[in-house]
Amino acid sequence: MGMIGGGIDSFIGDVHRKAAGIDGMIELVCGAFSSSEEKSKRSGKALFLPENRCYGTFEEMILKEKELPEGERMDFIAIVTPNHMHFAPAKLGLENGFHVVCDKPMTLTIEEGIELESLVKKTGLLFALTHNYPGSPMVKQARAMIANNELGKIRKVQVQYLQGWLATSIEKTGQKQASWRVDPTKSGVGGALGDIGTHAENLVEYITGIQIQEIAADLGRFGEGRVLDDDGNILLRLENGAKGTMSFSQIATGEENNLAIKVYGERGSLAWCQENPNQLITKWLDKPIITYTPNGNNLYKEALEASRIPAGHPEGYLEAFATIYKNFAIHLNAKLTNQDIEVPDYPKVSDGIRGVKFIHAAVESDKNNAAWVKLNSTI
Amino acid sequence: MGMIGGGIDSFIGDVHRKAAGIDGMIELVCGAFSSSEEKSKRSGKALFLPENRCYGTFEEMILKEKELPEGERMDFIAIVTPNHMHFAPAKLGLENGFHVVCDKPMTLTIEEGIELESLVKKTGLLFALTHNYPGSPMVKQARAMIANNELGKIRKVQVQYLQGWLATSIEKTGQKQASWRVDPTKSGVGGALGDIGTHAENLVEYITGIQIQEIAADLGRFGEGRVLDDDGNILLRLENGAKGTMSFSQIATGEENNLAIKVYGERGSLAWCQENPNQLITKWLDKPIITYTPNGNNLYKEALEASRIPAGHPEGYLEAFATIYKNFAIHLNAKLTNQDIEVPDYPKVSDGIRGVKFIHAAVESDKNNAAWVKLNSTI
Amino acid sequence: MGMIGGGIDSFIGDVHRKAAGIDGMIELVCGAFSSSEEKSKRSGKALFLPENRCYGTFEEMILKEKELPEGERMDFIAIVTPNHMHFAPAKLGLENGFHVVCDKPMTLTIEEGIELESLVKKTGLLFALTHNYPGSPMVKQARAMIANNELGKIRKVQVQYLQGWLATSIEKTGQKQASWRVDPTKSGVGGALGDIGTHAENLVEYITGIQIQEIAADLGRFGEGRVLDDDGNILLRLENGAKGTMSFSQIATGEENNLAIKVYGERGSLAWCQENPNQLITKWLDKPIITYTPNGNNLYKEALEASRIPAGHPEGYLEAFATIYKNFAIHLNAKLTNQDIEVPDYPKVSDGIRGVKFIHAAVESDKNNAAWVKLNSTI
Amino acid sequence: MGMIGGGIDSFIGDVHRKAAGIDGMIELVCGAFSSSEEKSKRSGKALFLPENRCYGTFEEMILKEKELPEGERMDFIAIVTPNHMHFAPAKLGLENGFHVVCDKPMTLTIEEGIELESLVKKTGLLFALTHNYPGSPMVKQARAMIANNELGKIRKVQVQYLQGWLATSIEKTGQKQASWRVDPTKSGVGGALGDIGTHAENLVEYITGIQIQEIAADLGRFGEGRVLDDDGNILLRLENGAKGTMSFSQIATGEENNLAIKVYGERGSLAWCQENPNQLITKWLDKPIITYTPNGNNLYKEALEASRIPAGHPEGYLEAFATIYKNFAIHLNAKLTNQDIEVPDYPKVSDGIRGVKFIHAAVESDKNNAAWVKLNSTI
Repeated sequence: MGMIGGGIDSFIGDVHRKAAGIDGMIELVCGAFSSSEEKSKRSGKALFLPENRCYGTFEEMILKEKELPEGERMDFIAIVTPNHMHFAPAKLGLENGFHVVCDKPMTLTIEEGIELESLVKKTGLLFALTHNYPGSPMVKQARAMIANNELGKIRKVQVQYLQGWLATSIEKTGQKQASWRVDPTKSGVGGALGDIGTHAENLVEYITGIQIQEIAADLGRFGEGRVLDDDGNILLRLENGAKGTMSFSQIATGEENNLAIKVYGERGSLAWCQENPNQLITKWLDKPIITYTPNGNNLYKEALEASRIPAGHPEGYLEAFATIYKNFAIHLNAKLTNQDIEVPDYPKVSDGIRGVKFIHAAVESDKNNAAWVKLNSTI
Repeated sequence: MGMIGGGIDSFIGDVHRKAAGIDGMIELVCGAFSSSEEKSKRSGKALFLPENRCYGTFEEMILKEKELPEGERMDFIAIVTPNHMHFAPAKLGLENGFHVVCDKPMTLTIEEGIELESLVKKTGLLFALTHNYPGSPMVKQARAMIANNELGKIRKVQVQYLQGWLATSIEKTGQKQASWRVDPTKSGVGGALGDIGTHAENLVEYITGIQIQEIAADLGRFGEGRVLDDDGNILLRLENGAKGTMSFSQIATGEENNLAIKVYGERGSLAWCQENPNQLITKWLDKPIITYTPNGNNLYKEALEASRIPAGHPEGYLEAFATIYKNFAIHLNAKLTNQDIEVPDYPKVSDGIRGVKFIHAAVESDKNNAAWVKLNSTI
Repeated sequence: MGMIGGGIDSFIGDVHRKAAGIDGMIELVCGAFSSSEEKSKRSGKALFLPENRCYGTFEEMILKEKELPEGERMDFIAIVTPNHMHFAPAKLGLENGFHVVCDKPMTLTIEEGIELESLVKKTGLLFALTHNYPGSPMVKQARAMIANNELGKIRKVQVQYLQGWLATSIEKTGQKQASWRVDPTKSGVGGALGDIGTHAENLVEYITGIQIQEIAADLGRFGEGRVLDDDGNILLRLENGAKGTMSFSQIATGEENNLAIKVYGERGSLAWCQENPNQLITKWLDKPIITYTPNGNNLYKEALEASRIPAGHPEGYLEAFATIYKNFAIHLNAKLTNQDIEVPDYPKVSDGIRGVKFIHAAVESDKNNAAWVKLNSTI
Repeated sequence: MGMIGGGIDSFIGDVHRKAAGIDGMIELVCGAFSSSEEKSKRSGKALFLPENRCYGTFEEMILKEKELPEGERMDFIAIVTPNHMHFAPAKLGLENGFHVVCDKPMTLTIEEGIELESLVKKTGLLFALTHNYPGSPMVKQARAMIANNELGKIRKVQVQYLQGWLATSIEKTGQKQASWRVDPTKSGVGGALGDIGTHAENLVEYITGIQIQEIAADLGRFGEGRVLDDDGNILLRLENGAKGTMSFSQIATGEENNLAIKVYGERGSLAWCQENPNQLITKWLDKPIITYTPNGNNLYKEALEASRIPAGHPEGYLEAFATIYKNFAIHLNAKLTNQDIEVPDYPKVSDGIRGVKFIHAAVESDKNNAAWVKLNSTI
């Protein structure tokens, strides 16, 4: 793995490294950790990398690594930069034969997304998008239950992703995470929308297996002087006729990372919450409440495979994140060794395009006073 | 108290009687429990009422009770009939000098609501609307915290009221509760909207002290052949600029009576859930999570007064309902005895009109594909 | 119902009146509410009783009511006095033909308990002990599940009853509830032991259907100058070989009324907590977690009968208490009308004796440095 | 790090490797993973170790690694074998200049524990015992709150550690984890007592900062034919006069890994549960309930330092475990580089002796029908 972005003072870079490392399948071998070469080398040194594998730019890294012998050079790049710096390194990586792991939202524009998708198809290279929540065992159980029609036809969805860390104008204090997220040149047209709304969108489609057809979005800009949304309320209509709501916010004072989803079908329903990820609560027409736990009784194979330790030993955010990397690594390893195996799922370039379409549809809807916009009409 | 509707096989009639009785301030003295005189008398007998105080129609009850000497005749009527039977007895009661307790939604039309409001003003009689959830101690604490500006300016609201009992077409099995609720001649233009959506609307306005300005509503009719909504998703905009979502449903399979609200202000937020009513969870910019409990530490007077028993002894649905009756009775008693006291709050005719406006705004919005409709524009 | 004790400033008197009243089967007709006749009459007046039915002593009440014509006189007495005042009125009541409802612990001594039991047997009168927690629907479900062998042989029990209201020496401030509870002349040999430990003991035996065989008790007296225990930790051995712990306290700072029990059998286990009474959580060898709710799916008849309102509408402490009165009233009514019906359960004189034996065994064990004492060896 | 035990089919070996790896401070360089040399090499290969660093015995590993040049040879050994195989490698490692990380319970006998302690003192080498739960941020917050006297004098403790995985006789099916744990030649005199009871004992002493003075233990052997305890109920008396209970079990059907503790002081109390580790609930004489979360508001430095990711992103079992390794590594690194820093805490050889004393005291008490035994009297 060669990392782009994620210097030593970065939150998400450290998360990616820990997540990639947990299962012992991936090794960090090089990085372009910062746009400053000196800072990149300093980060690399702290990570025990040799100096000559610490690059000053992603272009340098991709082109120099390409020259290294197979087995020594990095197998894939992991892009952990702010949003506006996803597309260029992803494109260059793919064009030079490297598999890609990319943070979300995938690109600033739908066109960029489609270009990446074409490149992935053309090159046959792997592309993973780090929506981490589908890596949680109970999310996998939820998806499997619906895929196996336990809930009956899905009618209703409620999803929320609530944070409070932008409740005050901390971007004005120089807080690094906040600064780029409220800046449209770095975040794109969506603020909280792109940062967390896309996780909510992805979770709906991943768990239900049904695409969101159209949305009516009312975005808020509560922080003084903010150009981008820091809050949003959205009506959802799904392809199969289900309806629902999405609410996301970074000004929901006191909330930490409250991503939660409820899905209602004709026979049963389920509820999952990221802050308490080790239970999946299901309610039924004709049965009492049934709660599943990781590595507990009566789970689908997909859920069992996503747990590392025995029931009752909680896994958390990093482990779910790690499962994305692990499944990508399993796929990559099978590909590199020409094995024909059943590959466990992880988010791909197509999921990235869904997210970008969602962002653009929401922004368009909001501009039109929450008029309905179809996700597939946005280009 | 003289009851209209609520015969012995009625769910809500029994609830009203238990709620009115808990605090020992109200006595049932007569009733027109059913449109069948025989059934009304049978109900009255089971309730230990003398036969001559069990009437065949509400008109008979109101007019005959009026003839009884003061002290013997009922002081007020309690209307617990289906929606279409609220207006006529309320009007006749007021016109004949009786105070009124009325179930929600108050009337089928806004015009009827306004007519009742005029009558209340003209006669000076009391009118209570039995939105029961404002009777809960932790709802009162929530309201007091916001009224005292603990949370700062309110920015975001999420409210849901989820039930699953209409997930299947039980109205076709002759289930009495279901039959009238899906019938527009009895329920009015709103189905779940009137039955539970109005509770959610009322809770938002009661807790925040801010009116809902406009809504964009997407209603669902999932049960086969249903004319009225059995599900709804609504975007909210409040008078002060806050935004939010409302989701209500009677097809949310497995849900029992899941009314829950979250309110976010600039400095803090709060969350309350009816199914676990004895805690109020608050989250803050700069403090850890603080959870209040009935009769626990650091409560506002309004919350303390709404508890009957020591901390840790859970009160429930009936007790909250009883507090509406109790506060109405305190008001009535003060009025009858010419005492000038500080009257604790209970929902009134103005709250009833808000509910009816909400129903009509939502139906209009839904007809126009979830276009925004102002609540005060609906007449 | 004629009440002994429970004047208007009493906590438990009000609870008994509300609980007795909820289901509309019991009417308060007279009372000896206080040892002061004046105060008794004042209490009675506030309760809308005629002055001549407000008595100055329980002896007067029992003897005068006995003279009244059947139908007019009270059917039973409800004893809601401090512990030392249970035996005498219960005995006199039984001797004069009145059924009895009595608060717990039943008597100060085992001998008194046995005397009451003999009187009950001899007279054929009914005797209810107001252990209220067995009135909770989910407690009834727990009992029924074990009675129907769903859990397999019971192996382990954990029960706790934790309060914090005596964490400081509030008895020195004149707080009325505290004063008599720390006074051995009024409470008997047990402090917290009698007040709440007996509830825990009763709950174990009620839910499991198995008697506690022997105990090893380590009692604490943490409040300065307290003679009676305000805390206790007890090892339990049950008749069937199961083992367990009991912990009770009134100095568990911050706890409100945290009575909770867990029972483990060979195939499954269950957990119930009084502060969140509307769920029963069960865990299994080979099934996921299953949570039952009042009036929810798949309940035993005993649990369904103990609910008043639909699923999701929480019932609380008063309703559970009311179920004891309701079941007693059903029994009494059947007896008075010579009906042969299946009587729902409520705690009886035999449960009272168990509680008193438990208190005395714990005190004896504690005196011997937590040596094992058999409950049936205590007399 | 050189690992002793923990071959590729071992549960706890994998946990140790993941935990040691998360923070990027520790590298596995060699191992004696199995008593079979072939299996040891196979494990090492799967872990990407060179064959010549995979040893057939721990003696070989310690002696050969000692010969390697500094910088290349392992810095410390991690002992992850069954209980009876802790002492010998720990002793040999210390005697040959290697620091030691050792699983719990530390040794089979108190004498062995004391011998290790002497060796640690004599050599000045570091010794970490992997009680992992003190690594949890909220456990650190709990300890800091008590150390800073927020709760006042501690009066009462309740601790439980409940599992159900030995509810049936799975040792007879050849299940590897179960087989050695029920075998006294491998586990020592304690079964569940040593395996999980010691975690409970350690947690009490770590959080309160107070030693357990004496215990009265009633152990159970519910599984057919079991020689060692699979269940235990214990009365606790602490050095400062506090009292309490401990309950542990591996036959608590349906429980997964339910370690939970409650501590009551004169002014406040706290509760923590391993299965939901990311909250610490505190209750108070005169304040509402206050809940702390990792990286949330108002935490002590010790709690903040033990979190890796932002508030609301749950960390779990592996991360707590990793904190033990991290703090040990910080200490080791400071020692190796002669830095004088404030070393964060981790369990040490003295904690190991406490655990072994606890096991022996409990066994002795149980043999004497739960008579009190002082922990410091056991040798």
